[in-house]
Amino acid sequence: MVNTLFLPELREMLQLGQETDLREFCVTLNPGRTAEFMEGLEDAEVWAVLQHAEPYRRAEIFGYFEENRKLKMLTREPAEQAAALVEEIPPDDRVDLIHGLPAETVANILPLLPAIDRRDIERLRSYVEGTAGSLMTTDVAKLAERFTAREALEELGRRASDLETIYYLYVVDDNNLLRGIVSARQLVSAISNTTKTLGDMMETDVVVALVNEDQESVAGKVERFNLLAIPVVDSGRQLLGIITHDDVIDVVREELTEDAQRIAAVAPLEDDFLRIGLFKLSYKRGIWLTILFFAALLTAFALRAYEDELEAFAWLVWFIPLIISAGGNSGSQSATLVITAMTGGEVKNSDLPRVLSREFVVSLLLGGFLALIGFLVALAIAPTAWAALVIPCTLLSVIFCGCMCGVTLPILFKRMGLDPALMSNPFVAGIVDILGIVIYINVARVLLG
Amino acid sequence: MVNTLFLPELREMLQLGQETDLREFCVTLNPGRTAEFMEGLEDAEVWAVLQHAEPYRRAEIFGYFEENRKLKMLTREPAEQAAALVEEIPPDDRVDLIHGLPAETVANILPLLPAIDRRDIERLRSYVEGTAGSLMTTDVAKLAERFTAREALEELGRRASDLETIYYLYVVDDNNLLRGIVSARQLVSAISNTTKTLGDMMETDVVVALVNEDQESVAGKVERFNLLAIPVVDSGRQLLGIITHDDVIDVVREELTEDAQRIAAVAPLEDDFLRIGLFKLSYKRGIWLTILFFAALLTAFALRAYEDELEAFAWLVWFIPLIISAGGNSGSQSATLVITAMTGGEVKNSDLPRVLSREFVVSLLLGGFLALIGFLVALAIAPTAWAALVIPCTLLSVIFCGCMCGVTLPILFKRMGLDPALMSNPFVAGIVDILGIVIYINVARVLLG
Repeated sequence: MVNTLFLPELREMLQLGQETDLREFCVTLNPGRTAEFMEGLEDAEVWAVLQHAEPYRRAEIFGYFEENRKLKMLTREPAEQAAALVEEIPPDDRVDLIHGLPAETVANILPLLPAIDRRDIERLRSYVEGTAGSLMTTDVAKLAERFTAREALEELGRRASDLETIYYLYVVDDNNLLRGIVSARQLVSAISNTTKTLGDMMETDVVVALVNEDQESVAGKVERFNLLAIPVVDSGRQLLGIITHDDVIDVVREELTEDAQRIAAVAPLEDDFLRIGLFKLSYKRGIWLTILFFAALLTAFALRAYEDELEAFAWLVWFIPLIISAGGNSGSQSATLVITAMTGGEVKNSDLPRVLSREFVVSLLLGGFLALIGFLVALAIAPTAWAALVIPCTLLSVIFCGCMCGVTLPILFKRMGLDPALMSNPFVAGIVDILGIVIYINVARVLLG
Repeated sequence: MVNTLFLPELREMLQLGQETDLREFCVTLNPGRTAEFMEGLEDAEVWAVLQHAEPYRRAEIFGYFEENRKLKMLTREPAEQAAALVEEIPPDDRVDLIHGLPAETVANILPLLPAIDRRDIERLRSYVEGTAGSLMTTDVAKLAERFTAREALEELGRRASDLETIYYLYVVDDNNLLRGIVSARQLVSAISNTTKTLGDMMETDVVVALVNEDQESVAGKVERFNLLAIPVVDSGRQLLGIITHDDVIDVVREELTEDAQRIAAVAPLEDDFLRIGLFKLSYKRGIWLTILFFAALLTAFALRAYEDELEAFAWLVWFIPLIISAGGNSGSQSATLVITAMTGGEVKNSDLPRVLSREFVVSLLLGGFLALIGFLVALAIAPTAWAALVIPCTLLSVIFCGCMCGVTLPILFKRMGLDPALMSNPFVAGIVDILGIVIYINVARVLLG
């Protein structure tokens, strides 16, 4: 929903060149809300309004627009104005944007930036996507051990305009090695103490992320230790930057969304659903559909092998989809529950026996209930009550196998170092489909043969 | 993996009553790591070690144990010690714990707490689960407008021991009405300015959460505005508390996990997979399995209606599972992609035409490819090449219908105010199963009849 409340006023201000009003508009509301009110404007109009904000505020407001709009504006507007804006964008966001810009635009903008920003951008661009380095910002509050709390606060005050937010104060030595951290809480409590230095109050056992560490592992640390930000260091413990809580939320969201997609047998898109290329999307879906297709093909050959039984008892055919889908659905429930519980840290590899014994009970309850309904329906369709018994016996066995497969495979895959979300459901579906047919015909053979 | 590195030393210290060493152990490492090293101890041993930490530190370390262990310790250990610990736990976590304790334990502990904490607990307990009120903490840094930056820092320093972390400074009037917020960055930049007050520097357009607001809506605001914490107010704008970023990560995780479970047709567990009662678990899975079962039952009746065709062309039966699963898998891929894209804010209701036109292309690509493979296999099984054509024609149509259903239903359900994740996949599966059979037999009729 685009907020159209101020659009006419904003357009009028632009047309009449009412600079004071436009400047006022850019500071009165908080930057996010300011961006919201401009969403309905054309890109060129947004850009024109932004030129009336102070540089820092301009970058803040700009940050709230959609990725696509930001990229379009930076590409189309004059390089000098774009560079002035890019200079003020926080280092981590800035690098993400530059990743999305056409090479030509980047080549136009980069030379207009101060050397220090240019070097910072080049360094951050060199980190591999998905590592701590690619998420971090270089806006860090760092100071030496010798400062007292009050001196530290005064020093920070002088630099505050360069710092997005002050999460923690990082204490480094002359070689930029991380020595410890001081929280805002500790700093503020010590403000009246004129002798205690940062070295005295800092926490030296610091949770850090290595620059090449996988982003999910970093997010896990931030979540477990409830951190506002985590320092990123290289193997020599040089402080390179910090990763802040907002990037961690993004990682958690990405990770879980990919899980859900993998569970439905789609290779993670790694892009917006509406932006990803259609061939790429078809490919990411096609590989798994094809694997599942070949698994299902086995059922065709199995059914052909049972040609005689199916001819002798034609009514058995009518229940084939029902039996296969009951097994498949219960198996995919089990697999999904185990996968989400493993991602959430509730289930570990060592929990397999406990998971199995619980699933044993649940699968018999579910299988028993559905077998009962299935029996009642089969009574109406099968030639005799004895023949109808084939259906509940099959359902109970198939649901039992589906559930057991469903909980076991994800844990096994994880133990083998494979991705449980990616592998489990296709395998479960394939195994349960073919098992369903085999169980069905053999139960029929025993009872009817 | 339990860290056993220090266990023998810790046990020895406890046996020999080495108080200085135990006190030392509690302060040297950061609290999270201290808890990690104690994980292998018995509950009673953990409790004994904790008694050597300062009250604030004790609560911090305690906070890192698993929910279950925390509840067990609080229930079994002396009420006086438990109360002393509870007093130091941050208000929001404390209430969550109390929710999990047996009524008897709560009745023993509460009277031992200072009246102010008791009232705080009672108030927080009264908020409905899943609302902003149930997530918030009452540890808030609030001050009046008249303070200068330096005075504010000094005042905060005096109170810092009660504040978990200082996220923002909240400016309130004499009636506790929220007037504005000051960020740590603003506060620190103004430290040398002796005349500027909080009233001068505060941001007055504050993003707030209403106390009854749904937690997902609150999490959305925090994510969109990149906040460290969001103030919670009542309808009269009284400042009641704040919700911090770590609780927001939990909400996002919960929300997405529930999405994944709903996609696999499980009613959200709302409890740990290994802790939820087996009957409750069976119920949450059973309702949807039963609904899916009835949908699949329709296929049995459809197949019975086509008895003559199936008898005339017995080989058609062999491909039934293949066709149904190809439709079901492609439909569930489509539905899952749309659902996750809607949760992530990439797809809105108004995007339906665009989604449909893109899916049109993708479904023909996927359907065409699988139809080709299917045709090759059918050539080997079907009596004539002409007869084999039934399989690719059916596959293309079924996959096309599956994909179109898959993307349309979640958006329609959302427009109707229903939960797309909960409703879509079962409906898609049901519709595609029955449609698959109908398309199959009718294609066969046309080509073979």
